[in-house]
Amino acid sequence: MLYCDDSLQVRAMTTTLDQLCINTIRFLAVDAVEKARSGHPGTPLGAATMAYVLWDRYLKHNPAGPAWPDRDRFILSAGHASAMLYALLHLTGYDLPLEELKRFRQWGSRTPGHPEYGLAPGVETTTGPLGQGFANGVGMAIAESWLADTYNRPGHEIINHYTYALVSDGDLQEGVSAEAASLAGTLRLGKLIYLYDDNDISIEGNTDIAFAENVPQRFQAYGWHVIGPINGMDIDDVDWALREARSEPRPSLIICRTTIGYGSPHKAGTASAHGEPLGEEEARLTKQALGWPYQEPFTVPPEALAHFRQSLERGRRCQQDWEDRMRAYSKAFPEESRKLKQALSGELPPDWDREMAGMFAGQDKPIATREASGKVMNAIARSVHYFTGGSADLAPSTKTTLKDHGHYGFEEYCGRNMHFGVREHAMGAIASGMSLHGGTIPYTATFLIFYDYMRPPVRLAALMKLRVIYIFTHDSIGLGEDGPTHQPIEHIAGLRAVPDLVTIRPADAAETVEAWRVAMQRRGPTALLLSRQNLPVLDRAVLAPADGLKRGGYVLRETATPQVILIGTGSEVHIALEAGRLLEQQGIAAQVVSLPSWELFDAQPEQYRREVLPAEIKARVSIEAASPLGWERYVGQEGVIIGLSRFGASSPGPVIYEKLGLTAARMAEEAARLVRRNDV
Amino acid sequence: MLYCDDSLQVRAMTTTLDQLCINTIRFLAVDAVEKARSGHPGTPLGAATMAYVLWDRYLKHNPAGPAWPDRDRFILSAGHASAMLYALLHLTGYDLPLEELKRFRQWGSRTPGHPEYGLAPGVETTTGPLGQGFANGVGMAIAESWLADTYNRPGHEIINHYTYALVSDGDLQEGVSAEAASLAGTLRLGKLIYLYDDNDISIEGNTDIAFAENVPQRFQAYGWHVIGPINGMDIDDVDWALREARSEPRPSLIICRTTIGYGSPHKAGTASAHGEPLGEEEARLTKQALGWPYQEPFTVPPEALAHFRQSLERGRRCQQDWEDRMRAYSKAFPEESRKLKQALSGELPPDWDREMAGMFAGQDKPIATREASGKVMNAIARSVHYFTGGSADLAPSTKTTLKDHGHYGFEEYCGRNMHFGVREHAMGAIASGMSLHGGTIPYTATFLIFYDYMRPPVRLAALMKLRVIYIFTHDSIGLGEDGPTHQPIEHIAGLRAVPDLVTIRPADAAETVEAWRVAMQRRGPTALLLSRQNLPVLDRAVLAPADGLKRGGYVLRETATPQVILIGTGSEVHIALEAGRLLEQQGIAAQVVSLPSWELFDAQPEQYRREVLPAEIKARVSIEAASPLGWERYVGQEGVIIGLSRFGASSPGPVIYEKLGLTAARMAEEAARLVRRNDV
Repeated sequence: MLYCDDSLQVRAMTTTLDQLCINTIRFLAVDAVEKARSGHPGTPLGAATMAYVLWDRYLKHNPAGPAWPDRDRFILSAGHASAMLYALLHLTGYDLPLEELKRFRQWGSRTPGHPEYGLAPGVETTTGPLGQGFANGVGMAIAESWLADTYNRPGHEIINHYTYALVSDGDLQEGVSAEAASLAGTLRLGKLIYLYDDNDISIEGNTDIAFAENVPQRFQAYGWHVIGPINGMDIDDVDWALREARSEPRPSLIICRTTIGYGSPHKAGTASAHGEPLGEEEARLTKQALGWPYQEPFTVPPEALAHFRQSLERGRRCQQDWEDRMRAYSKAFPEESRKLKQALSGELPPDWDREMAGMFAGQDKPIATREASGKVMNAIARSVHYFTGGSADLAPSTKTTLKDHGHYGFEEYCGRNMHFGVREHAMGAIASGMSLHGGTIPYTATFLIFYDYMRPPVRLAALMKLRVIYIFTHDSIGLGEDGPTHQPIEHIAGLRAVPDLVTIRPADAAETVEAWRVAMQRRGPTALLLSRQNLPVLDRAVLAPADGLKRGGYVLRETATPQVILIGTGSEVHIALEAGRLLEQQGIAAQVVSLPSWELFDAQPEQYRREVLPAEIKARVSIEAASPLGWERYVGQEGVIIGLSRFGASSPGPVIYEKLGLTAARMAEEAARLVRRNDV
Repeated sequence: MLYCDDSLQVRAMTTTLDQLCINTIRFLAVDAVEKARSGHPGTPLGAATMAYVLWDRYLKHNPAGPAWPDRDRFILSAGHASAMLYALLHLTGYDLPLEELKRFRQWGSRTPGHPEYGLAPGVETTTGPLGQGFANGVGMAIAESWLADTYNRPGHEIINHYTYALVSDGDLQEGVSAEAASLAGTLRLGKLIYLYDDNDISIEGNTDIAFAENVPQRFQAYGWHVIGPINGMDIDDVDWALREARSEPRPSLIICRTTIGYGSPHKAGTASAHGEPLGEEEARLTKQALGWPYQEPFTVPPEALAHFRQSLERGRRCQQDWEDRMRAYSKAFPEESRKLKQALSGELPPDWDREMAGMFAGQDKPIATREASGKVMNAIARSVHYFTGGSADLAPSTKTTLKDHGHYGFEEYCGRNMHFGVREHAMGAIASGMSLHGGTIPYTATFLIFYDYMRPPVRLAALMKLRVIYIFTHDSIGLGEDGPTHQPIEHIAGLRAVPDLVTIRPADAAETVEAWRVAMQRRGPTALLLSRQNLPVLDRAVLAPADGLKRGGYVLRETATPQVILIGTGSEVHIALEAGRLLEQQGIAAQVVSLPSWELFDAQPEQYRREVLPAEIKARVSIEAASPLGWERYVGQEGVIIGLSRFGASSPGPVIYEKLGLTAARMAEEAARLVRRNDV
């Protein structure tokens, strides 16, 4: 089944050399932490053996070709051990000079405190917040299985790699890893292999105080293959366990007993080894205890380096072999090959939006934007063959099922509809893993209220600038009877506060089409906020075209000499339009602005922004069924913000709008008041 | 061990009457959903038997005394089955007339779509977002065990009750329940008994597609006692299982096989029974199938009502017995009794803040606000004996250990320092459960970045107006080397957007004291944002006193005729002060405002707010090492906001401040520019 890595495994030459290599990893990490006077030496000391055996004997990778699509993935879910990863990257020949290890945790270095995707090559994902890497790995294994089942052909196993991670006690305590592990077991992701650094220590002391569970039994319950406990600091044990794991059709958890801060005479096995430098003297003693003869920090013994750098030749041959096979595949299956390459490139097909033009033109029946979104998604799915995703058990409500595209599962890994279960947090982190892996454009779906359950992965996706599309339906009190537990208030502001995330709340079906256009074309995360309730499809013969959405905000209803500007987003744009009509009846000229995306609007040239919101018109009223936080930016100090500074209520949606004062009448009244005041 | 409930158990009189009662619950729920044309009939139909047996035979409660402290707690974690809970409350005699069931999910009713704490008596917590109720229950059981171990005395078991919950497939898929279950197992909370409604169905279809794990094995791994699977629709099975569970020293999970939508000829066992009304015809057919002879909706057969209402007499006797015992305890242990009563009242002792006055007066050594907070907490702990909480494995970093107050655990349930493990989400929900239970003022602690992991319970605490104090340290890029994965940006804005939550970011040790004063006195949730880095203790002989904090914002450094206002929060107040000095050197009079809490400030009378931020001074500059979202409210359209619209970076903290432009020099420059512009 495997093409190159089995043949390339280099058995331990001598235990002495292996131990020297392991100590080289350990002390590069220790020295980096000492120099930075900040960092986490304990895990590198304890986990270096596991990492070494994996990287030296099993990991299929090419340090000179870090983007090679069929490489194995390695995730350091215990991101605080970043110095160990940087040591491995440097030693095996990635473009990460020793100088960078000396600048660990310093401004502008490629070796930040926790591994950051995009800084050092070979860092497969940004980790640190615990549990995230665990779930990212599940996403990568899902992407691998999907690509393999979709594009491989008999005799042409183009996609076929493992996803490894090193996970800690803290990772396993976080709920997100529980969610991801349960799903990975259900999906039987056999090429997922996690090394669990089981060292009994977390920051408050022995893990007994909070984590007395039987981890092996728990993972068996999830359907995982559990190996060990083994001695995680024994080369042969780790070697054997990895071999076992690779032959298994289920995901594997290798339980590796280790000692945090191994070798440190005074700190080994204690929480104080975790998160602060050993100190000069203790570092010296640790080197002594482990038989490390070099006084000079950052010493790399030449024989160790020579051994590590064999990765370059192995990797080169491995990738070369794959490229040869890719060529053969391209000849035998030109269409599949073209599609696979396109999927891996992430480029959209030239005609990807062919069905989207004028999609809801002439429609006069009101339609919820979630419903419109579902239709757009299905149009996209027909042309973008690597557009895939799913929902946290809400597909029928979020309208996100891709019809006739199958269901992803162990019986059909090429299905495009994923079922995440009621697990929003893992869903977010898995989607990031899929995006990081490459080969798919993933989407997720749930109610906007449940963004709260998945904030950490959305943030990390923004930090990594990943293309993930988050569909959040039921985006306001308009959802009605389910009540305040399900009605978002603070969530829109929350999304807007995340750097590098674009949030779009379309007003109708036509804006929904444009929102999808933006989302698909971005190379970063986008959140789409969609209504549960039906909304009129705006008459674009009278109003401005919906493609104004791409600029974030636009004048929807123009007036010759406006006295007041009414601004709305999403479902409240219709209230603003109605308020405009009411004002007209009173002889007040109101311009109506649709402002579906603050981020897109704020990125426009100042001139455009002033066209939409002319500085001289200070009478402005905004309406949004959400927290008013931040609206002053658009309405100014003299304007009026109609929003919600309280929680919602359980009742039919229209009643709540009425009771909480989100009405055209009130908006018109506030606007008229402002106009009158300015006239005085 | 138990005082009254064993003797009060009423065995099944006749199966016919039991079945009639169960059907009464079912059809009150079905009829409520039909009338509302919205809701979830499936779970009530399937789970009514479990609920009935529990409420009829085991639950120690008094419908006429819903606040009786030693009642058993019942949580409907599957909050979508709210109509079933309302039916039980009405039938057993709580103050919830049938009329309210007829107004299910309507504006102003006490029967919202999901159960809301504070609306109908007997609703112990607000549920709906899955997994939350599961974890709330763990918090209640923790509070019970803590109170019992702290205040009970031999022969005086004043606190001794069970916590029950009904949990669904969705609850068990959410990570928060995994976290809470692992902790409950570690803590051996034997009086926690959960009925798992195992019906194989979630919204997207059969749970197989996403949830194939072995639930019994998983809970065994957590250290739970697992009973079943039993037939959850068989009275005797449920009765037996509850009896088993109550005799166990470990937490119990009773696996109850049920059929969602039981009785519905066309919808039973399908996802379509879950979240929408059966429809008139199907409701009729279901009643027919289950032998329910009444045509009229909301029928309560008199013999069923009579049976249910026996709860009132049982409950009265039960509470009376407890009150008698309480009197005996008060006599035998007057001091303990006084303390217990005070704890249960939630009132602060008269001298609760005796150590806080002038706590950091005269201190000239800089001190991090997290460090100051730790000292304040220890002062409070000495006088408020029921102040208890813990951290998500970060006590040494958050400085939240209560010295000499023991560690809460199964060997010492009276310890006051809790160890939540790396489980922020469960921590939040558990703290809510503790607060709901009463008898403690709980606090939680973690880094501000990890607020993202616990947003759902913080929101629900705000919705329920619970007294929980959230300590969030490492509140900005000032934390330094750990980098952008650990540096909050959007979190302060996010907290401010949550209704009914008060967020306070004190500037120094003295403001930290005042922040704690506010937090302790509130009957709602408070978030305290604290620095990792040291901060000067402001010289209050020169500057305004720190008790200005209680008004949310105050003039810290007054100037006779200010030309510009500089506003800051937390650690950035010191930058604003320095900028003020720089401006003074240039002959510009700058007033400096400390604005630690927007919510408190916005709640002040307009006159006060205008004193702090005089309308005529339009030159204003704000500084906060966080998202600028919302600052326009205070600086106005002509002002300048110095904030962060990007992620942070890994580097020593002072370097990041410098590189990202959060400096006194820049603030002074912006202020001078504004003043010059206004002069023109």
